[in-house]
Amino acid sequence: MAYYIGIDIGGMSIKAGVVDSAGKIVEKDTIVPRVAEGQDAIAKDMFDLCEKVIKKAGLEKKDISGVGFGSPGTVDADKGVITFAANLGFKKFALLKEFSKYWSVKTAVGNDANCAALGETKFGGGKNKQNAFFVTLGTGVGTGFIVDGKILTGHKGGGSEGGHICIRMGGEKCSCGERGCWEAYASATGLIRQTEKALKKYPDSLMTTTLENGKVTGRTAFEAARLGDKAATKVIDTYAKYVATGIVLLINVFRPEVVMIGGGVSNAGDILLSRVNRYVSRHCFGDKRINPVPKIVLAELGNDAGIIGAASLVM
Amino acid sequence: MAYYIGIDIGGMSIKAGVVDSAGKIVEKDTIVPRVAEGQDAIAKDMFDLCEKVIKKAGLEKKDISGVGFGSPGTVDADKGVITFAANLGFKKFALLKEFSKYWSVKTAVGNDANCAALGETKFGGGKNKQNAFFVTLGTGVGTGFIVDGKILTGHKGGGSEGGHICIRMGGEKCSCGERGCWEAYASATGLIRQTEKALKKYPDSLMTTTLENGKVTGRTAFEAARLGDKAATKVIDTYAKYVATGIVLLINVFRPEVVMIGGGVSNAGDILLSRVNRYVSRHCFGDKRINPVPKIVLAELGNDAGIIGAASLVM
Repeated sequence: MAYYIGIDIGGMSIKAGVVDSAGKIVEKDTIVPRVAEGQDAIAKDMFDLCEKVIKKAGLEKKDISGVGFGSPGTVDADKGVITFAANLGFKKFALLKEFSKYWSVKTAVGNDANCAALGETKFGGGKNKQNAFFVTLGTGVGTGFIVDGKILTGHKGGGSEGGHICIRMGGEKCSCGERGCWEAYASATGLIRQTEKALKKYPDSLMTTTLENGKVTGRTAFEAARLGDKAATKVIDTYAKYVATGIVLLINVFRPEVVMIGGGVSNAGDILLSRVNRYVSRHCFGDKRINPVPKIVLAELGNDAGIIGAASLVM
Repeated sequence: MAYYIGIDIGGMSIKAGVVDSAGKIVEKDTIVPRVAEGQDAIAKDMFDLCEKVIKKAGLEKKDISGVGFGSPGTVDADKGVITFAANLGFKKFALLKEFSKYWSVKTAVGNDANCAALGETKFGGGKNKQNAFFVTLGTGVGTGFIVDGKILTGHKGGGSEGGHICIRMGGEKCSCGERGCWEAYASATGLIRQTEKALKKYPDSLMTTTLENGKVTGRTAFEAARLGDKAATKVIDTYAKYVATGIVLLINVFRPEVVMIGGGVSNAGDILLSRVNRYVSRHCFGDKRINPVPKIVLAELGNDAGIIGAASLVM
């Protein structure tokens, strides 16, 4: 059994895990990034964290075949540089070069959402597929595309911004400043706005009983729909259509074997998934006998996707 | 200098050319496909056509390093099979296997639009780029995506249907049966419909003077705009915005180094290109200092893109 380390870098915590070649996490640990100390100090801390998890796993450095890093922001994977990551203060951070001062091991770095997509494709919902994509329905909408087994990064890591595909010209305003982006409709933020609108229109709806601390959340409509509420069911029907519209668009371009959905909203489970699958199978381009419609499935790795995905970079 | 053969298969004609490693066509020739005789007969005819162009070029079979085929329809490139091509009556046509009965040479097959994208990326408007895409504005809208120097085919060749990305949910009806597809707005067909509408609204427009045989074409609005007509200028402003909206969407996903435009409508040249570039540079996602906005350029290979692109498959 070969072992790898995956490091999931975030603004609040840096998680490292020893991952075996079957994609299982053997041991993991976490540190808080010393953002004020600067990027080079963080590289050193990540090396120390590696030594710690290796020891915890009862292994030695020589047992580790590679270390992969997943970082937020823009990553130039070819050059091993994190071009920009606001929360961490990274600017043109030559992470792989810096890390090699401490440990001469095979390394790679990728954007964290792309790493999660790779992890989910290798070991999660898209197991053993060569062509897949991963959609995260959270505060925003994130995407990661796997083409022939490899992450699609775009030139200098600038691609894969699938939340900002325009599905309705002149439509809702998006956080990016444009109008009609998928994210404006299919994110939790979009769902909350749609739920609030429906609640105003149908003040007697059961959605009033599924608020949390008096507030609409991404769960409000799903829970009321489960109670049989008509207005809530309409909200999730429409929301599922928004989610599916972007997925159909991306299927027509990429035609993957499977599409994985993750992020907070995906916890709704089958009530969402069944609707999305129905819409997708009806609206994908082409003859289904020639080009089968890919199945939409739930992501399986949860919070571990980042660590496992980062480790997958060096497998 | 190494030589290759590119074969551009079409319903009306099959074109073959000897192409050198600089992407120049040395000699070419054409046959009419004997569709009624069936697919195996066409394979034999293509072999005979190869022998003919080789002789014409003053070469011998041993001088040819490979033969590439570009076919319409769905192509399973990994298996060397044309799954389906309506105009030619191809169904599960194992072209590479059939062709190998006549000539044991390196071969490859791809979808014709994808081949053109590869040819344009290697030797045309996107010369020497690794990440690029090609958009054909014709009766429909076709796309071909080059990722890290390779064609994006999707699973079993079912991808790259970029004409059918939904840019306006619930919008114009598309030939595919769906609503709001990019093709419904950005194709010549879409432009003609937009021009006809404007002509109805502004019957005194100079567009009345740029009709052809009393009919609106894809040129009508461009030519009247060149004469300074306001209504026509408004038509092409809006049309360019439709073209650019789909391009921005695809740039946000792929972030290529360059985007090439071809097809009949692209003959309008700078009057279209300048508008598309302006819109794209304003509306692409992200910080331009980190991720430069790709330039939109005209395709350069014209009708030869098919032959050169098919040959590129085996280079």
